[in-house]
Amino acid sequence: MLGGAAVHFSLAASFFTEVRPVGPVGEDFGDEQFAVLERRGVQVDDIERVPGGESFFWRGRYEYDLNVAHTEDTQLGVFGTFEPKLSAAAEAAETLFLANIQPDLQRQVRAQCDAARFSALDSMNLWIETAKDSLLAAIAEVECLIVNDAEIRQLTGEPNLARAARAVMALGPRAVVAKQGEYGAALFTEEGFFALPGFPLEDVRDPTGAGDSFAGGFLGYLDGHDGELDEASLRRAMGYGTVLASFNVERFGTERVAALSREEIEERFQLLHGMTQFEPLPAV
Amino acid sequence: MLGGAAVHFSLAASFFTEVRPVGPVGEDFGDEQFAVLERRGVQVDDIERVPGGESFFWRGRYEYDLNVAHTEDTQLGVFGTFEPKLSAAAEAAETLFLANIQPDLQRQVRAQCDAARFSALDSMNLWIETAKDSLLAAIAEVECLIVNDAEIRQLTGEPNLARAARAVMALGPRAVVAKQGEYGAALFTEEGFFALPGFPLEDVRDPTGAGDSFAGGFLGYLDGHDGELDEASLRRAMGYGTVLASFNVERFGTERVAALSREEIEERFQLLHGMTQFEPLPAV
Repeated sequence: MLGGAAVHFSLAASFFTEVRPVGPVGEDFGDEQFAVLERRGVQVDDIERVPGGESFFWRGRYEYDLNVAHTEDTQLGVFGTFEPKLSAAAEAAETLFLANIQPDLQRQVRAQCDAARFSALDSMNLWIETAKDSLLAAIAEVECLIVNDAEIRQLTGEPNLARAARAVMALGPRAVVAKQGEYGAALFTEEGFFALPGFPLEDVRDPTGAGDSFAGGFLGYLDGHDGELDEASLRRAMGYGTVLASFNVERFGTERVAALSREEIEERFQLLHGMTQFEPLPAV
Repeated sequence: MLGGAAVHFSLAASFFTEVRPVGPVGEDFGDEQFAVLERRGVQVDDIERVPGGESFFWRGRYEYDLNVAHTEDTQLGVFGTFEPKLSAAAEAAETLFLANIQPDLQRQVRAQCDAARFSALDSMNLWIETAKDSLLAAIAEVECLIVNDAEIRQLTGEPNLARAARAVMALGPRAVVAKQGEYGAALFTEEGFFALPGFPLEDVRDPTGAGDSFAGGFLGYLDGHDGELDEASLRRAMGYGTVLASFNVERFGTERVAALSREEIEERFQLLHGMTQFEPLPAV
């Protein structure tokens, strides 16, 4: 079914700002798939349809509690020979998300986006194991790393998450987001630490794409909001990321987010706020 | 080294209220061990020292990220033949914590504490597997279950945590606390859901006893504070539980909590508050 990091990200971010995914798809990505993006106003001009090609494909299974995914099959398809060449419109983006792919490709895209004032990068264990130097170079060129917490430990060789995040920031990024599945997500910055739980749901159908929907809500909000990219904005962005991820998992594939409304997002954002706030007693 | 659920709990709770642990120890639990408790004002009259006996003993190891413990050795020692008989002072307790032990023993203690207006129970996978009926009966008799999130799933046979917590509340408890290691803890009540991250630490030495220190901060605060056991109080109690657990893991055994001050607790509570709050934009 329809999926992929750029698709999940774009749909989630489309509620906050104009989104322009860049990347190749195969002939199996047809009018029906483009229509899902276009109905949400996503700009599809930079999606390159490769004649005779097949789209990137992933299949996996989840453990009992849905927190751990096991990859069963990955086929790069058209990504195997992809050489990114951005349009002028894509080059002008102020906010950039480098979804999980070979880090040299991420660096090529980053290099073409001179205008980006906030860029974020996702990655995975495969690249830590097979292309670590490239990945470290790619991380040094972005403002924010958004990966699973286990990957931050693996990347830095540091079992303590707070230390591992500090080691990442020493490479360049001003922010590190540790995705933690149903446990939520944590934000490390110079200013300090912030964390939100996952939004509690009684019906979780499909965690696939939750991390990319998180990134879409997070970066979409940051791009669309007025004002500085300060700590308060980053925290609010964590909230929108959490909300979009929670809608993502309610149904399979892109079903739920594609049918979402901004009002539903705001309603859940307020609920999340209510689930995380507490009042300390005034000092006696 | 000195440990055990009742010891960790008592030290943590001692910062908020009078604590009176009930249970047996062996001859290996001597003046030095009693002194650690007494220096924190813990009432030790209901600790029964069994001549010729050996104290309960646990040894285990932790995985790389310190989130998963593996038991290597457990010796019940004097708990093997323990028959709880509470003093009048212990029977009069308004708040009761039934630390993790065979659930029939927990029920015997609960039955002797008529005055308790808020009782909480901890348990573990061993009792779910070997004494499930007793455990379910014990849970039905308390106001609050405090266990690891995986144990809530195992107990109810429900992989979704929100559903699993609801199933526990259907048995009797008005509150369910899911402990989640470094990810923090979540509170389920009739009123809704609340969650806090673990307090981020760059030096974690020993997670042993963190759950019991959490319970000590949580129940100690509830017992010591003025006013109702309402949602706001429970949330604040989650904060104090989180703070006490975080001090517990900074050094081995009881070292750190035994040397703690109320001022340090309040300072960290305020830091935790600052790490979890965010401001939604006013509705446009």
